[in-house]
Amino acid sequence: MERTYIANLPLDTPCRACGFVDTVRHMKWGAFVILKDVTGRIQITFDKAAIPEIVNVTPHSVLSVEGVVKENPSVRMGGKEMIAEKLTIESTAEALPIQNDSEIEARMDYRWIDLRRDENQLMLRVQTTLVGAMRDFLAERNFVEIHTPKLIGAASESGSDVFEVKYFDTKAYLAQSPQFYKQMAMAAGLERIFETGPVFRAEKSYTNKHATEFSCLDLEFSYIDSMYDVMKMEEDLLTYALARVKEAHGDEIVRLYGEEHEVIVPAQPFPVIKLKDLYRELEERYGYSVPESQHGDLTTDAERLCARFAKEKYGHEFLFVTDYDAKERAFYHMRDENGVPQGYDLIWRGVEITTGAQREHRYEILKAQAEEKGLAQDVEFYLRFFRYGCPPHGGFGLGIDRLTMLFLGLSIKEVQFLFRGPNRLTP
Amino acid sequence: MERTYIANLPLDTPCRACGFVDTVRHMKWGAFVILKDVTGRIQITFDKAAIPEIVNVTPHSVLSVEGVVKENPSVRMGGKEMIAEKLTIESTAEALPIQNDSEIEARMDYRWIDLRRDENQLMLRVQTTLVGAMRDFLAERNFVEIHTPKLIGAASESGSDVFEVKYFDTKAYLAQSPQFYKQMAMAAGLERIFETGPVFRAEKSYTNKHATEFSCLDLEFSYIDSMYDVMKMEEDLLTYALARVKEAHGDEIVRLYGEEHEVIVPAQPFPVIKLKDLYRELEERYGYSVPESQHGDLTTDAERLCARFAKEKYGHEFLFVTDYDAKERAFYHMRDENGVPQGYDLIWRGVEITTGAQREHRYEILKAQAEEKGLAQDVEFYLRFFRYGCPPHGGFGLGIDRLTMLFLGLSIKEVQFLFRGPNRLTP
Repeated sequence: MERTYIANLPLDTPCRACGFVDTVRHMKWGAFVILKDVTGRIQITFDKAAIPEIVNVTPHSVLSVEGVVKENPSVRMGGKEMIAEKLTIESTAEALPIQNDSEIEARMDYRWIDLRRDENQLMLRVQTTLVGAMRDFLAERNFVEIHTPKLIGAASESGSDVFEVKYFDTKAYLAQSPQFYKQMAMAAGLERIFETGPVFRAEKSYTNKHATEFSCLDLEFSYIDSMYDVMKMEEDLLTYALARVKEAHGDEIVRLYGEEHEVIVPAQPFPVIKLKDLYRELEERYGYSVPESQHGDLTTDAERLCARFAKEKYGHEFLFVTDYDAKERAFYHMRDENGVPQGYDLIWRGVEITTGAQREHRYEILKAQAEEKGLAQDVEFYLRFFRYGCPPHGGFGLGIDRLTMLFLGLSIKEVQFLFRGPNRLTP
Repeated sequence: MERTYIANLPLDTPCRACGFVDTVRHMKWGAFVILKDVTGRIQITFDKAAIPEIVNVTPHSVLSVEGVVKENPSVRMGGKEMIAEKLTIESTAEALPIQNDSEIEARMDYRWIDLRRDENQLMLRVQTTLVGAMRDFLAERNFVEIHTPKLIGAASESGSDVFEVKYFDTKAYLAQSPQFYKQMAMAAGLERIFETGPVFRAEKSYTNKHATEFSCLDLEFSYIDSMYDVMKMEEDLLTYALARVKEAHGDEIVRLYGEEHEVIVPAQPFPVIKLKDLYRELEERYGYSVPESQHGDLTTDAERLCARFAKEKYGHEFLFVTDYDAKERAFYHMRDENGVPQGYDLIWRGVEITTGAQREHRYEILKAQAEEKGLAQDVEFYLRFFRYGCPPHGGFGLGIDRLTMLFLGLSIKEVQFLFRGPNRLTP
């Protein structure tokens, strides 16, 4: 018999349900089982006389059950129950090594059991919808998908924080970002590209937002006039994707994660502020100040205060911050006539989710900016991309895990399918 | 002024085109430029008196040109030309180091220039459509997207062919496939998952179909009754995706790659044959025979002959081959009561594009099969996924690069955005 999703089981008709045993209550005469699949739960009543194997069923075992669903007002779960006629025990679960409230490292050790919780199932579906919506948005706009290599010949940008790979008789490194190759695609005339894939950071950080491997959506596009084209693309993208998530999962998110995690589809345009104006506002409003010498970059505390500031001043969850100091930004950001990098950070709920920019595409200027940072030799292979024609372009990257974190108020360990950190390579 | 795609430039109205210089013919009075963007080409006429900078324009430079498009029957390219009024040279190209007919390694060295060819631009768009269509198909069917870690703690399946990573004070390895983690997702109750991402193989192979890093689409789903459910999913997926590619790029593929690469949307069901029957047919039809001892697996020559055989016997480009010898298949393939693995290879145009199977989900049997191959210790972390309940399931993986190769009759080096092989880590 074909399997039917639990949410779709018909009344009074023979049918088959498959799923995990959520709970089992053994009785003298048989058992009550709550069976769970990706669509819902149903109570199933087993008569031991008809189905003797039921005595062996343990919580989290996987069953295939044929039977008939009947209305039964005394059943709390939807007022119906299935009367089992045939049972196949597909897999018997041993006693579980973790519970829902086990401490986080134990849950990581048995992540596949931890992922069975409704909250985690929803979390992965939210992520699927979010990334799928972003890809749809980009496909609509003529973006080409590329797959850039993760094995690279030279440690990019800076030698630190990069993993080294034994590559036959030589060494390779794991890409920290597809940045250089996204730009190569611009020199290749592809005009608009995106990629979703893993990036690797050899950082010994133990915060709740750092991982050694995580997933990013990266995009880059040509023939822009300024960084404002990049910011517009990003706010359009996020607004579209958040609306799609709200539509698909909004109610479920509130039900499982609470009102405070209601999905808010942002108003456009997103507010924009220059870094020095932001520091002035933070001081005036909240008495927050840092020495002038730190005004070229956003401190972690200032980043966090952005949540409150954006809400109070603009009634918004997002905030674009521009006009960082060139010393604090990558050499490949284009600079204006005053030396101000044409890039931005986007802060959401007090956390930086993107760095974006118009890139410098003019070979001589780019080379000079790399030299100024002492990188010209390291990035020589990259500088060559700009010698044979390259359009003006810009782009940004978005951490998919980080976005999910902020969505649902979780830590990075909780949103990755399998977290990777300095002390965590398993399972 | 806003930029307009070349294919959409209006007649007799001021407009702006941006693109690479495909060719430039300098004349006494000025120049003819063929400008190219992702939508097409247009001839632009520059008068040196009005636009003196035109003398500096080289092939492959990037221009932004304002002007007016006029009909001109004497122009071969679409019977129209643009009369330039304003020129911005966005980027000046040096003399190109490669030509279209340069040998392959030189083209790989300057891949970004090589990618500018129309054939390569189309190739990447075909790949984008193909993968996008497959994701749409899966989203429709309730598949969840996951991102499995590429950094793993133990060399999976077998210790050979795996890249070793220096991981702080210990070692990690690069995943050769998401196989074990796809199955972990089944134990996590996600029921249906897919992933697109890189896989890594430390093989010193120099064939035209091997790379050390390539992109795969992998999927896995639960509550199947047999491997035939997996085969059905795969043929539905491929048929849908090929139809989408044909619709979007069919004519262009024939124009640029020739009639012999016409996209054929396959008829369903795909033909299926048992390995021993295949060997019998190949001997009877083509006099091809190998010793009985090799009948448990498909030889490379037999694989190649499948193209002819499938066409002649079934009028089809695809062929499912089943009933391999258990010695030749992974330990995690489920076996029937006679010990025959419940898996298959799918052959397209004489090349294996997939291995798929129903997996063994019952802990004791799976453990015994791992022990038989001497792997029980290596895969101990994986075996644990099956101790706490796991549904019956199956799945397959598809090499995205390999699929593109077969589509367009190219080598692996030509279809990857940037090829990676034992001697190739740059650019």
